Amino acid sequence: MRDFERKLITEWRRLGLPFSESTIVIAVSGGADSLSLLLAADELRKLKKLDLRIVAVHFNHRLRGDESNEDEEFVRQITVDRDIELAIGHSGSAIKTNIEQNARHERYDFLRRAAENVHAHAILIAHTVDDQAETFLLNLIRGSGARGLSGMPAVRKIEDSEAVIARPLLSWARRRDTEGYCHELAVKYRSDTMNEDESFTRVRVRKILLPLLADFNPKIVEHLAETANLLRVELPPEPEVSGEGLRLDDLRRLKEADLKRTIRAWLETNRGHLRQVGLKHVTAIERLIGSGKSGKTVELPGGDAVFKQGGWLCFGKNMVEKRGLAN
Amino acid sequence: MRDFERKLITEWRRLGLPFSESTIVIAVSGGADSLSLLLAADELRKLKKLDLRIVAVHFNHRLRGDESNEDEEFVRQITVDRDIELAIGHSGSAIKTNIEQNARHERYDFLRRAAENVHAHAILIAHTVDDQAETFLLNLIRGSGARGLSGMPAVRKIEDSEAVIARPLLSWARRRDTEGYCHELAVKYRSDTMNEDESFTRVRVRKILLPLLADFNPKIVEHLAETANLLRVELPPEPEVSGEGLRLDDLRRLKEADLKRTIRAWLETNRGHLRQVGLKHVTAIERLIGSGKSGKTVELPGGDAVFKQGGWLCFGKNMVEKRGLAN
Repeated sequence: MRDFERKLITEWRRLGLPFSESTIVIAVSGGADSLSLLLAADELRKLKKLDLRIVAVHFNHRLRGDESNEDEEFVRQITVDRDIELAIGHSGSAIKTNIEQNARHERYDFLRRAAENVHAHAILIAHTVDDQAETFLLNLIRGSGARGLSGMPAVRKIEDSEAVIARPLLSWARRRDTEGYCHELAVKYRSDTMNEDESFTRVRVRKILLPLLADFNPKIVEHLAETANLLRVELPPEPEVSGEGLRLDDLRRLKEADLKRTIRAWLETNRGHLRQVGLKHVTAIERLIGSGKSGKTVELPGGDAVFKQGGWLCFGKNMVEKRGLAN
Repeated sequence: MRDFERKLITEWRRLGLPFSESTIVIAVSGGADSLSLLLAADELRKLKKLDLRIVAVHFNHRLRGDESNEDEEFVRQITVDRDIELAIGHSGSAIKTNIEQNARHERYDFLRRAAENVHAHAILIAHTVDDQAETFLLNLIRGSGARGLSGMPAVRKIEDSEAVIARPLLSWARRRDTEGYCHELAVKYRSDTMNEDESFTRVRVRKILLPLLADFNPKIVEHLAETANLLRVELPPEPEVSGEGLRLDDLRRLKEADLKRTIRAWLETNRGHLRQVGLKHVTAIERLIGSGKSGKTVELPGGDAVFKQGGWLCFGKNMVEKRGLAN
């Protein structure tokens, strides 16, 4: 067994992934990370360490023309050569705004459907320690709040399903390990030209910010990934709130930390995200809750607002703008 | 009232600091931050917004020879000119190792004693938003774990005392605001040459890392400071543990997150800090707790070790080294 394969099977056990009588789906872009995961799992199957049906899933976003199609052809060839099952999906839409975000949604949707089709027990995604560290920095730079810094989990259940999403490289594999493993197997991998395009913040984080941080601490990638992991474990779980109003009497009984958490979770539910929401907004809402006066409004970035009505704390979508139009 | 003074008195109220019939101590290095705090408080007293006894406290570390003595003389002159009480302390020792850390301890000790002498209700320290952001980054780079990223509080009680330590600039003042206020009053301030010395990590964070981060997000300093604040509020309080052993039966009843927290707090108590302690050590200790075998040892960075003995989890100081000598 090669070192990479040994580390993978150790993590496989730790994560409680199935060893036999199961189907697993592996998302494969053609890059070193996902290719190394697919090939190592396939090698482990050949070594009889795993006795599983493995289905590779490739999603062609069609965002990069010929390059996307070459990626698809590359994955097809690799899987044909090695006799690995392959499911391929194509992007239906050509939405060009917020490319990264939409592409991700489409890809995850397709992955889920592909997994359902083959009754998979696990969807494997090849995120590495580097991905975890980069995501942490991206969220830190965007100001996503405390919980926004929590790292991706190595395993999580999929809602309304027995299947899990697992990241068996996340806790140990650096990007150079996945590249090294591909070299070891003498397999070429694809390099996404987007990974070189510095108009993407993530690329600048990788190519400019992280090398500078490594001057401060050579172990920075591992540190950041670990910090993200610790925050996920240490932060209390998100309180459950609905998109409805919150009863003021209930809120006033909460301790300060719980009140802050509840407000943030409620804002996130209503806005879909917490971008640009800062401590000052949360504090203003706390003051609104605490004060006896009605009629006051806390304006949020983007035009939403929070106000009180008949004993309830209410959320007004695009309220500030609407009021402007009405006046 | 000048803008800086208005913001200070607003924060004064928010923090519950006394307005009259009290004594406050203000730590003054002679730099723009502490000088602006002292002068603004003094101006507010002249404006009858505050009716307090104000005592400036300067601590001369004697780390920078003539420069340190000039700082002292400068603070003395400013306080004489304005008829402000002043207490001066001098460093007794000349410990040159870990300069920043020791100097900080000595300074805080002297501050506490000076506050006791005058029966002060509050010790005011002039940390700014920039300090909060820089400290966050320093701790992130050092890998101080999740709780190490929690920001300084704007107010905290001093143990066994009615007094508080307050940072009335922390939540709103940028360094440029304090410099601007000194300019407004036509008062010169001292610049510590250490603030320019790039052999200090903090200086490189300020001069190299933060400007690069500002290319990503111009509001980065505010974002980082706010993240540090949110983490302080959101992370559950440190569990109480003694330096004694922990009973294995108790540990085995804990939920995973509580167990991790308990282990970390216990390690911190025993080692004095959590530096270099990572998730892998905590996980190894969890496995040690969970396993039925005795005789195994988890080695920690620096030579300490954790082991089991008669139903207890035990901490061995410098154990790894000692064992080495015994063999």
